[in-house]
Amino acid sequence: MTGFAFQVLSESKLTSARTGLFDTPHGEVETPAFMPVGTRGTVKGLMPRDLEEAGSRILLGNTYHLHLRPSDEVIEALGGLHAVMNWQGPILTDSGGYQVFSLGDTARIDEDGVNFKSIVDGSAIRFTAERVMQIQSRLGADIVMAFDQCPADPTDRQGVALATDRTHRWLERCVRWHRDHGGEDRGQALFGIVQGGAFPDLREESLQAVTEHDLVGYAVGGVSVGESREQMQIALEATGSKLPRDKPRYLMGVGTPRDFFEAIERGFDLFDCVTPTRHGRTASAYTSQGRLNLRNQQWVRDTSPLDPECPCPTCTGWSKGTLRHLVKVDEMLGAILLSMHNVYYFHALLRRIREAISEDRLLELKAKVLAEADANSAR
Amino acid sequence: MTGFAFQVLSESKLTSARTGLFDTPHGEVETPAFMPVGTRGTVKGLMPRDLEEAGSRILLGNTYHLHLRPSDEVIEALGGLHAVMNWQGPILTDSGGYQVFSLGDTARIDEDGVNFKSIVDGSAIRFTAERVMQIQSRLGADIVMAFDQCPADPTDRQGVALATDRTHRWLERCVRWHRDHGGEDRGQALFGIVQGGAFPDLREESLQAVTEHDLVGYAVGGVSVGESREQMQIALEATGSKLPRDKPRYLMGVGTPRDFFEAIERGFDLFDCVTPTRHGRTASAYTSQGRLNLRNQQWVRDTSPLDPECPCPTCTGWSKGTLRHLVKVDEMLGAILLSMHNVYYFHALLRRIREAISEDRLLELKAKVLAEADANSAR
Repeated sequence: MTGFAFQVLSESKLTSARTGLFDTPHGEVETPAFMPVGTRGTVKGLMPRDLEEAGSRILLGNTYHLHLRPSDEVIEALGGLHAVMNWQGPILTDSGGYQVFSLGDTARIDEDGVNFKSIVDGSAIRFTAERVMQIQSRLGADIVMAFDQCPADPTDRQGVALATDRTHRWLERCVRWHRDHGGEDRGQALFGIVQGGAFPDLREESLQAVTEHDLVGYAVGGVSVGESREQMQIALEATGSKLPRDKPRYLMGVGTPRDFFEAIERGFDLFDCVTPTRHGRTASAYTSQGRLNLRNQQWVRDTSPLDPECPCPTCTGWSKGTLRHLVKVDEMLGAILLSMHNVYYFHALLRRIREAISEDRLLELKAKVLAEADANSAR
Repeated sequence: MTGFAFQVLSESKLTSARTGLFDTPHGEVETPAFMPVGTRGTVKGLMPRDLEEAGSRILLGNTYHLHLRPSDEVIEALGGLHAVMNWQGPILTDSGGYQVFSLGDTARIDEDGVNFKSIVDGSAIRFTAERVMQIQSRLGADIVMAFDQCPADPTDRQGVALATDRTHRWLERCVRWHRDHGGEDRGQALFGIVQGGAFPDLREESLQAVTEHDLVGYAVGGVSVGESREQMQIALEATGSKLPRDKPRYLMGVGTPRDFFEAIERGFDLFDCVTPTRHGRTASAYTSQGRLNLRNQQWVRDTSPLDPECPCPTCTGWSKGTLRHLVKVDEMLGAILLSMHNVYYFHALLRRIREAISEDRLLELKAKVLAEADANSAR
């Protein structure tokens, strides 16, 4: 499709990991890549230039939240999501499906779509495949996601099967709407979403159904929702490397450093999660010495940086003692600096992963990073 | 004194305004200058590099707040306020006198000092001249302020006279402590504070008493506390140009664009106020088109910048419509961007004022700026 291309640059011999280059109308993304989440038109607390410095190349926006406030129609009037986020790089919007089913607990599903109540003011809203595509076309991201039904319980076989089949029928409608309304001409690419819960056969069925459509990329959904690590691995095994080799593979809503390794080994390329900024706002930092809780009394006079191996603005400018003070007195700067560091840490980790894949030493890096992560929890 | 120098660069013929260069151990400050307030070790929401870009050259820290949390002893252990604020330029700390008398309403004054309760946990605290000097020496700012008694009611002659006399006796103790404890050797300069409320004769008496000490600079206090504009002008007239010509003159806790003109015309050089950041957090912006409230419905689809004449990151990167959205959904970035713009606006105004003084057209600039400020309130 015009403006989009994906190229595998290197493949690991021991695993299904690969590095790649994903080209979009707003620039290139080296994969595997992490996409920070800018739910309501901003990655919480961070300026676009801070994100760029941290290594962000592609951001995510949430269709559900932006539809509620300020509305897709207002975003369009303001020049689209790139203008609103003041972000010149690529943007991906999710379909809102996950939020519809996970927020507010008011969703009522029928074959055609979903009725739910706004978490902002309780007003009645209806999402259908067509409506969600229209909303995303107005938001104007580079990549738009098909509307999917995220099964409430990934271990309820009947529920998962129904939701997955419906997701396939909705995908057909999304593909049609996208084609009939000039999605390509607007420079927007549609990704389909594989569901199937914790059932390998349903995951494989879903993969077959979704990849029947020739799309720019494919995503796997419903993996981060209340599953055990074993169930997650089952889902990753059944999808990752079985998705088309020449298309970007996006694992939605994941995750943590451990999750990245699990998924990348199985062939995934793109990830998004609120983890680094949410943890940043709750005083938790990812470091080469494990996760640190900056509220702890132990840091009160500590003049050392958060992470001695990190060259980010937080680590080069502030001590753990100062960060603890800022967090304890609820200064915005505490949340800003920890979010900045965590995003930086995630991107730096993905960069190390890309290097390790191209030198085929991913498992070595995994062992090192996970040992670091465990080091601190052991103290 | 070592490391400090003040030089008058130009003087207005029509008014007492002057431009100057204030040299400190942490760098030069062109005057008149505005000092953003970093109450608890950070100017709220702004990174030091954002402040530098906005034009900040000297910051203020609050002794009262820092003594309570994390404590001056912890700040010292963390390398002092320059390290904590990650600010390489000069810093000034106030004496805490204003906060002791204005926050919490629990101050009990005697000749030797003040007992009050912490606004954080209600614990009993005692400030004396010596104690406040010790706290500030630990905080480690370039400029420290003498401990003063800020009269509760600037129009109660007897109360003002008592507080002012006591302030002079406390100043003697501050000067002695500063000398005996090597203030100069630490690179700290002490400023004295002129009180006297709304009474010209008490202000002049105070000015005489305070300037008997050969200090690096002199401040005027108690001007922003509950006075009418007329009373403020009386206080400015009685002090500003009557303070030593060859020393920086600091008007504490002021203020607004209008206040700057009033004070600069009367010979003042330095100002501090929480206005730009506090207004930034409450969605109010200073612009060349007057003050704007970004919560207003009228901006919802407005694609124009906050201030078309402003080159700050906020005005070049975000539209009024986007800023309104960020403010309405309480995103940190809304407060950050508006604070950044307001600080930028204040510094840009002071820069224009310095240029106008050196070309002796200050009153012309004043008329233009105040007409702009009124323009929007008239709509």
